[in-house]
Amino acid sequence: MEKNICKGFKAAGVVSGLKKKKAKDLGLIWSEVPANAAGVFTRNLVQAAPVILDRERLKSGRCQAVIVNSGNANCCTGKQGMEDAAAMIRFAAAALNIPESLVCAASTGVIGQPMPIHKIETAMPDLAASLSSEGLDDFARAIMTTDLVPKVLTLKGETGGRTFSITAAAKGSGMIRPDMATMLCFVCTDLEVPVDILQKTLVNSTNFSFNRITVDGDTSTNDTVLIMANGMSGAVIKTEQDRALFQAMLDEILMGMAKMMVKDGEGATKLVEIEVKGALSDNDARAVADTIAHSSLVKTALFGEDANWGRIVAAAGRAGVYADPEKIDIYFNNIMMCKNSMTCGDKAEAEAAKVLKTPEFTITIDLNSGKGKASVFTCDFSIDYVKINADYRS
Amino acid sequence: MEKNICKGFKAAGVVSGLKKKKAKDLGLIWSEVPANAAGVFTRNLVQAAPVILDRERLKSGRCQAVIVNSGNANCCTGKQGMEDAAAMIRFAAAALNIPESLVCAASTGVIGQPMPIHKIETAMPDLAASLSSEGLDDFARAIMTTDLVPKVLTLKGETGGRTFSITAAAKGSGMIRPDMATMLCFVCTDLEVPVDILQKTLVNSTNFSFNRITVDGDTSTNDTVLIMANGMSGAVIKTEQDRALFQAMLDEILMGMAKMMVKDGEGATKLVEIEVKGALSDNDARAVADTIAHSSLVKTALFGEDANWGRIVAAAGRAGVYADPEKIDIYFNNIMMCKNSMTCGDKAEAEAAKVLKTPEFTITIDLNSGKGKASVFTCDFSIDYVKINADYRS
Repeated sequence: MEKNICKGFKAAGVVSGLKKKKAKDLGLIWSEVPANAAGVFTRNLVQAAPVILDRERLKSGRCQAVIVNSGNANCCTGKQGMEDAAAMIRFAAAALNIPESLVCAASTGVIGQPMPIHKIETAMPDLAASLSSEGLDDFARAIMTTDLVPKVLTLKGETGGRTFSITAAAKGSGMIRPDMATMLCFVCTDLEVPVDILQKTLVNSTNFSFNRITVDGDTSTNDTVLIMANGMSGAVIKTEQDRALFQAMLDEILMGMAKMMVKDGEGATKLVEIEVKGALSDNDARAVADTIAHSSLVKTALFGEDANWGRIVAAAGRAGVYADPEKIDIYFNNIMMCKNSMTCGDKAEAEAAKVLKTPEFTITIDLNSGKGKASVFTCDFSIDYVKINADYRS
Repeated sequence: MEKNICKGFKAAGVVSGLKKKKAKDLGLIWSEVPANAAGVFTRNLVQAAPVILDRERLKSGRCQAVIVNSGNANCCTGKQGMEDAAAMIRFAAAALNIPESLVCAASTGVIGQPMPIHKIETAMPDLAASLSSEGLDDFARAIMTTDLVPKVLTLKGETGGRTFSITAAAKGSGMIRPDMATMLCFVCTDLEVPVDILQKTLVNSTNFSFNRITVDGDTSTNDTVLIMANGMSGAVIKTEQDRALFQAMLDEILMGMAKMMVKDGEGATKLVEIEVKGALSDNDARAVADTIAHSSLVKTALFGEDANWGRIVAAAGRAGVYADPEKIDIYFNNIMMCKNSMTCGDKAEAEAAKVLKTPEFTITIDLNSGKGKASVFTCDFSIDYVKINADYRS
């Protein structure tokens, strides 16, 4: 893991006491100078207080710091929740000696419980004092809920003879669904990027990455992807080629994050790409891929390492799109399991069973009815998923 | 349980060897005289061979017998599957000495495996010889897959001074979703009902019952609800009042079946009604109810007996319909847990926890934004669900 966050940024994570078990639960990212900024947020009708505040703040296109807590979602907390989110920002701004208008906030954790805001106030001086260019791992740990591993990625690029970096830290393990950002992700870059390009590129990359993964089909009230570009590397986006490079790098880094989330999905033991082709349109292909990726019966079969392609066909058939029901082919990696909607026999099944025992593979569904295609990523549905989610609050 | 099937019907169930573990797996219902008949079938794009045949046959509005197997879905079995379904009907017609055109068929079990049709042929004479007016319990056992209990219900009514009965047998435990019949259900009545009324009443009752339940959100390729009315009681539908009585009775019997399915849902420990009111329209209310009823996070919390209403709000918020996000009230039975999208405190939570420990209860979500309402039935999502479905084929 790259230890240093990109130029001009510092990060930190500390224990404030918000989590039931003593662990890092309050994180901060700060840029030495105000950065251009953009965000993508949950489309859930019910939105957490910090999400509502951030949307407003980011209209300016500027941000210098983001304060994030785990252990409490600050959602369904009414007027007091809005005041607490504003207070969280005020405490951070004061500790960093920057305007409140340049601070964003995010929260993740249990919904509907009052925020013990005094814990954040008490921990803030220590948090600000801990800021370091090597602090992103601590930050990533501080924003974890049911995640088992902290998620940090860095990529380096070059333009106009100057090198720059993009670094991201994220959390996400449950309540994941390809319907919006569906987690928290904070991206820093020392590249100089105009605000309009920053927003557009972020939306594109989010659609390419986080909007193509599922763990359990649920979206949260707190989903946030936030990017800050402080220009401290001296590298600048000037040409269309620069923009394309930035898009490709952001795609790669967010897709890397997205896959880390699915791999670390609650109780997950497998990362599976669901690739659909031969649909009448790309949208149709996506509908079929999503339906398969969300199917509890498909996902439990994956957990059981059972090449039960009948469940895949049944899920494809209820996706609400037309394809010839007698022309479906299914592959597990390169093993054809089903041709023209019929079994390829015991030998193919035995070969597919070997694929199922590996931790990462692709299931391809060829509908043989058109040229539409799409792919999404899912994980299996395990006994541990149920255990984790039956016990989450207790 | 009412032992006798209604007048003029006989039923049976035997072991043919289709199930891996030796158990009843072939069932037959026969009427002494040809009956008026109607059916409702899966909307899945991929449909099992017997479903395709039955749709054709029922255009005549007449049926005298139905042959049903478990252990093999006869789906994704191509041309051979169609021939096997036709053969199954031919064997039954021969054993009963009635025209093939008066026999329907249904199958349930693993998708995509060739049907060992010789087992059905071999078992047929024994099956026909076993027909009895007390045989519906055997029939119900023969059509079970992961069901733990056979499902049979009888209601008695009276019209024009004559009593009549409606009896139904059904199977359904997994792959249940409020999107169509989603299981097998066979209804017999000795009432005389014109075919057009029979079909219309069956569609209404299916929408009222089977289309309002979910276990895991998956629909099957074999879903069939079939009704036969042989008129042998001498009771006849003549007036609008008779028709209304028949509708009410069929609603009651199919809803009874539907609830039995959810209670017997794979791994289920609780039957929960999700009631939504205060939506902008009934359709909106239904969308919210469905989203909550399908949410893995809500269902695992129910299993954990955790009154995690935040997950209910989050699921409501992603249903894709508008309501005021700050006006949501949530009740567990009559205990208000959440008012204006905020917690009602620890005491309410302790009271709700008691409700959660009971096997049947209602969760009411009042969106306080309009007059739309709807309710559906769901179950919890348990460790056993995953175990059952990870191991189903092995």
